[in-house]
Amino acid sequence: MNNQKKIAIIMGSDSDYERLGGAFDIFKKFDVEFTAHVMSAHRTPNAAHNFATTARENGYGVLIAAAGLAAHLGGVLAANTTLPVIGIPVENGALKGLDALLATVQMPSGIPVATVGISNATNAALLAIQMLALSNDVLADKLVEYKKEMVEVVEQKNIKLQGKLND
Amino acid sequence: MNNQKKIAIIMGSDSDYERLGGAFDIFKKFDVEFTAHVMSAHRTPNAAHNFATTARENGYGVLIAAAGLAAHLGGVLAANTTLPVIGIPVENGALKGLDALLATVQMPSGIPVATVGISNATNAALLAIQMLALSNDVLADKLVEYKKEMVEVVEQKNIKLQGKLND
Amino acid sequence: MNNQKKIAIIMGSDSDYERLGGAFDIFKKFDVEFTAHVMSAHRTPNAAHNFATTARENGYGVLIAAAGLAAHLGGVLAANTTLPVIGIPVENGALKGLDALLATVQMPSGIPVATVGISNATNAALLAIQMLALSNDVLADKLVEYKKEMVEVVEQKNIKLQGKLND
Amino acid sequence: MNNQKKIAIIMGSDSDYERLGGAFDIFKKFDVEFTAHVMSAHRTPNAAHNFATTARENGYGVLIAAAGLAAHLGGVLAANTTLPVIGIPVENGALKGLDALLATVQMPSGIPVATVGISNATNAALLAIQMLALSNDVLADKLVEYKKEMVEVVEQKNIKLQGKLND
Amino acid sequence: MNNQKKIAIIMGSDSDYERLGGAFDIFKKFDVEFTAHVMSAHRTPNAAHNFATTARENGYGVLIAAAGLAAHLGGVLAANTTLPVIGIPVENGALKGLDALLATVQMPSGIPVATVGISNATNAALLAIQMLALSNDVLADKLVEYKKEMVEVVEQKNIKLQGKLND
Amino acid sequence: MNNQKKIAIIMGSDSDYERLGGAFDIFKKFDVEFTAHVMSAHRTPNAAHNFATTARENGYGVLIAAAGLAAHLGGVLAANTTLPVIGIPVENGALKGLDALLATVQMPSGIPVATVGISNATNAALLAIQMLALSNDVLADKLVEYKKEMVEVVEQKNIKLQGKLND
Amino acid sequence: MNNQKKIAIIMGSDSDYERLGGAFDIFKKFDVEFTAHVMSAHRTPNAAHNFATTARENGYGVLIAAAGLAAHLGGVLAANTTLPVIGIPVENGALKGLDALLATVQMPSGIPVATVGISNATNAALLAIQMLALSNDVLADKLVEYKKEMVEVVEQKNIKLQGKLND
Amino acid sequence: MNNQKKIAIIMGSDSDYERLGGAFDIFKKFDVEFTAHVMSAHRTPNAAHNFATTARENGYGVLIAAAGLAAHLGGVLAANTTLPVIGIPVENGALKGLDALLATVQMPSGIPVATVGISNATNAALLAIQMLALSNDVLADKLVEYKKEMVEVVEQKNIKLQGKLND
Repeated sequence: MNNQKKIAIIMGSDSDYERLGGAFDIFKKFDVEFTAHVMSAHRTPNAAHNFATTARENGYGVLIAAAGLAAHLGGVLAANTTLPVIGIPVENGALKGLDALLATVQMPSGIPVATVGISNATNAALLAIQMLALSNDVLADKLVEYKKEMVEVVEQKNIKLQGKLND
Repeated sequence: MNNQKKIAIIMGSDSDYERLGGAFDIFKKFDVEFTAHVMSAHRTPNAAHNFATTARENGYGVLIAAAGLAAHLGGVLAANTTLPVIGIPVENGALKGLDALLATVQMPSGIPVATVGISNATNAALLAIQMLALSNDVLADKLVEYKKEMVEVVEQKNIKLQGKLND
Repeated sequence: MNNQKKIAIIMGSDSDYERLGGAFDIFKKFDVEFTAHVMSAHRTPNAAHNFATTARENGYGVLIAAAGLAAHLGGVLAANTTLPVIGIPVENGALKGLDALLATVQMPSGIPVATVGISNATNAALLAIQMLALSNDVLADKLVEYKKEMVEVVEQKNIKLQGKLND
Repeated sequence: MNNQKKIAIIMGSDSDYERLGGAFDIFKKFDVEFTAHVMSAHRTPNAAHNFATTARENGYGVLIAAAGLAAHLGGVLAANTTLPVIGIPVENGALKGLDALLATVQMPSGIPVATVGISNATNAALLAIQMLALSNDVLADKLVEYKKEMVEVVEQKNIKLQGKLND
Repeated sequence: MNNQKKIAIIMGSDSDYERLGGAFDIFKKFDVEFTAHVMSAHRTPNAAHNFATTARENGYGVLIAAAGLAAHLGGVLAANTTLPVIGIPVENGALKGLDALLATVQMPSGIPVATVGISNATNAALLAIQMLALSNDVLADKLVEYKKEMVEVVEQKNIKLQGKLND
Repeated sequence: MNNQKKIAIIMGSDSDYERLGGAFDIFKKFDVEFTAHVMSAHRTPNAAHNFATTARENGYGVLIAAAGLAAHLGGVLAANTTLPVIGIPVENGALKGLDALLATVQMPSGIPVATVGISNATNAALLAIQMLALSNDVLADKLVEYKKEMVEVVEQKNIKLQGKLND
Repeated sequence: MNNQKKIAIIMGSDSDYERLGGAFDIFKKFDVEFTAHVMSAHRTPNAAHNFATTARENGYGVLIAAAGLAAHLGGVLAANTTLPVIGIPVENGALKGLDALLATVQMPSGIPVATVGISNATNAALLAIQMLALSNDVLADKLVEYKKEMVEVVEQKNIKLQGKLND
Repeated sequence: MNNQKKIAIIMGSDSDYERLGGAFDIFKKFDVEFTAHVMSAHRTPNAAHNFATTARENGYGVLIAAAGLAAHLGGVLAANTTLPVIGIPVENGALKGLDALLATVQMPSGIPVATVGISNATNAALLAIQMLALSNDVLADKLVEYKKEMVEVVEQKNIKLQGKLND
């Protein structure tokens, strides 16, 4: 029986699908169950409200909200669930995501949104997996493995740099 | 029969009551019907949702939302009503209302929030009255009168300054 | 007899015409009467002054000002009329509209400018229509309809996303 | 047998103890096991490195890092553990925590720090508990209860406001 | 016959009189003719418009505008005169004059406002005198003298510091 | 005999020549005598120092400094002359001229730099001419004429817009 | 024979003496030779120019410049010497040192100023000593010792915190 | 015997190699010994820690760290060595290096990072050489020569500009 909790990633527009590629790559690499949704705090408030309200009973463990501008999606979800909500402020419009960052992270006391860097979908996905890994040793081991791979990638780059320097 | 639409002013905490004094002064000066509420986009999302959804049928014409930090209140109301919503970004916390300004004004296309200056409750109230005055000549005349009074106040200050300069 | 009040949209340069396309689309969709003008707070101060001073008697209900940089147009209009004035800070120049946003929204007490997001002409037009709809049930109904359409658009995008995920 | 994972809260100076009061209140309210530490990414890098490296085996589930200025503490911990790390950017110095916010949230891909609002220790603690609650139904129920209490507090404030308005 | 052009200093409120002390000190030290006025771009637009329009014929050479928030005063004056206009962005409100600085300095091409530092009335007055000194050798000599005095003041401070170091 | 004072425009690099085109256009349009120089506060401090020190005796009336980044050129010139110095903060590098704006305008009391908008060479040139026009009626008349032309340009654009609207 | 190079610390006003206390403490703790000066890039440009030009031959190894607002002092010194120049942006005025930070750090290529945090005189002094320690083993050893002391201070704070937690 | 200390330049990715070209050009021009490394404060914390800890004994005199976003690399190195560490905040991501600047320069007291302008690798390299030149007269002479060359380059540009003006 698979009782692993699912991750939901919610975005304001289907055009964000490409933008959030980093998250999908991580989900696949770690082989976690996820669903993705287009939903808007402002345009479809009922859908967002309903999704958050029923997320726990529907088997979700973590919700990820990606939004730009006056990014309220993370806050709206967090207001309606006790699951951890991760916010990705999306770089969009004249202020390049600084607005979205502040609108996501500066939540009032009582309703946290775990905020990652601007447009950093990869980190949102990893953070979600770190949360699930607290009670899933397979994921925990994969995270250790992932960290080792990062070391190797950097070491390879360093070797490549030495080559360039000697040219 | 009084069928003048009402103004609602909604704040996150009762401690804001004093902060929003400028708005209450304007409401009284113009003798408009208003109600005031403590309600939170994040702590009482259902109350905010319900208030906005039923605002029109309950006789409201304009909603004013005052919120600080990741100020979502204006956006949450606007998502659930077609009445005009005015947002007052409140100066609060480390970023002094810059976060609230961006979280209020940078709404996505389709759901405007009419934003006034940081903590400028007076202007929010005046703007609400300007909207109601579009179909209320008594209010329209009072707005003209109010503008004249402002001129007189500045002229009096100018006379007082000349006195100081001659001291 | 048509006594519906008109909307005026005023811009600093005719090159903004394309930029403000979102507003014109909304005006047409809602079938409201509007006029558009090139006028500058600084280059044609008399024209701006005269327009605002006579706007009410000329049948206008709401004025929309679009300006970049040290965007004074909204403030200059608001100083000379008691009609509600909506300001669109335009993304322009090195500071990308942050200057225009602050120069539009941070008005002194007594003279509000209802500010929308940077370059968000769509929201300015919708806000103007929300104001007029306070005394026009046809417009009010159209706003309800517009909100429903937005829901449908997002739902369609969500369906499309599910298709992509299954690819 | 108690195998609930612990929370560690790590601060740069003991003077922060009072500042982080909101977190300690939450820990006590939810009756979770926690430890608190003074440790510095820059002044005691070995201590920080060792703590993070051994955190999982020492029974920790979540690490919370509170730091101001060029706030590296969250990043240093996250670099050395696969546990979720929560960062509290502390309001401190000339830039009032904006520096700490950016230095905490803008982590490179691969090493997320779950960032909460500036000096918002309450939200950091709640977020940590939300993570633990993913595999602890007692905590999950308490979170639901906490949300209900927040609603009641706001409703009480609203009632109090109505009293003030009637004075 | 005295045909020296006058300086006008215009402020939004008589409470600014004390704030602008540095300018009055410079006017007196250099013995230049000046007038001071309370006038508002937004509250008394006609007065501001009329003052600027007639400033040249009324014997003014330079206009200084001190304003905070969405500081339009300098721009409104410059729009209505060809005299040089100096803008003092006043530190006021939540954004501490950053709004006033941008609203003053970022004027569109064609209508410059010579902007000095936030609340730096001393520099505005000196700049006005530098302009008048272009055709007034007495003022030009006084400016040279003023510069020498500044050197002496700094040198005295340096001597005083050496005393402190030797304590 | 021509005793009209000259304008000097000083830039950090000859590549700025194209960037400052707006200033050269104004100089030619108003037929004022000017010289242009490549000089750097930091790379050629002696040249900058010498130029400023002797500017008055060499027949200059106004100095214009165009610089980006930590833009010290205006300040260095102003430190060494009592002539009015105009600063053009140049949009350059990662911060897009915000650094140059602050480094130019926030001068300490005693040494003003008349700052114009970021990269606004046109306004710098006009401001210089406004200063010279204080004692030159031909220039003063040309400034009045220039203002009239701006009105006509805007009016033409407005007519053109009406055409577009009717299409 | 003592041929250790000296450190000069230069400030804009003698009132900064108290502000720079952290630097003087470090100089005394490490027993390095230093001199302190009041000097201004703008008010006493010749003094600053002469000091920098002759600093090397006068036995200085490192210059430290502390300045606020449009902080040019570091840049002016660096323009006139090839010694390393350290800049301390001083928190002063409306923008709290953000202006000084940008005006100090964003130097053009060719003339670096080694910038430390806003008002962080301690770090400026330590950095100067690190530079001198490159050729002075006594200083190098003292720096190692200083680092150890920092560890002990933090460890003591941690012990004190455990005491508080157990209260 | 060559006992000249080496410079290490450390970057987060080999793709930065091209970006840091200005530093390599300076190293070659001044003929100083340097090594370059790809290393990450977050991805390879052990490598960064070990490099810094052993840098002095391995013959390094100055470490240069280039990093973007929440740029911790300079701080991590400085935490583990008493050698002077120079930080290059790299322009990268939505905030264009403002995050990296603050994360690099705002170090806590006790652990300075000598920060240069955003992406200004040239200045980082020159600053490193200025430090080494304190005990190396050959380098000191080359720095004087470099300063002279800069003067010549600017003077050539000035001559070229005069040519353009006369066209």
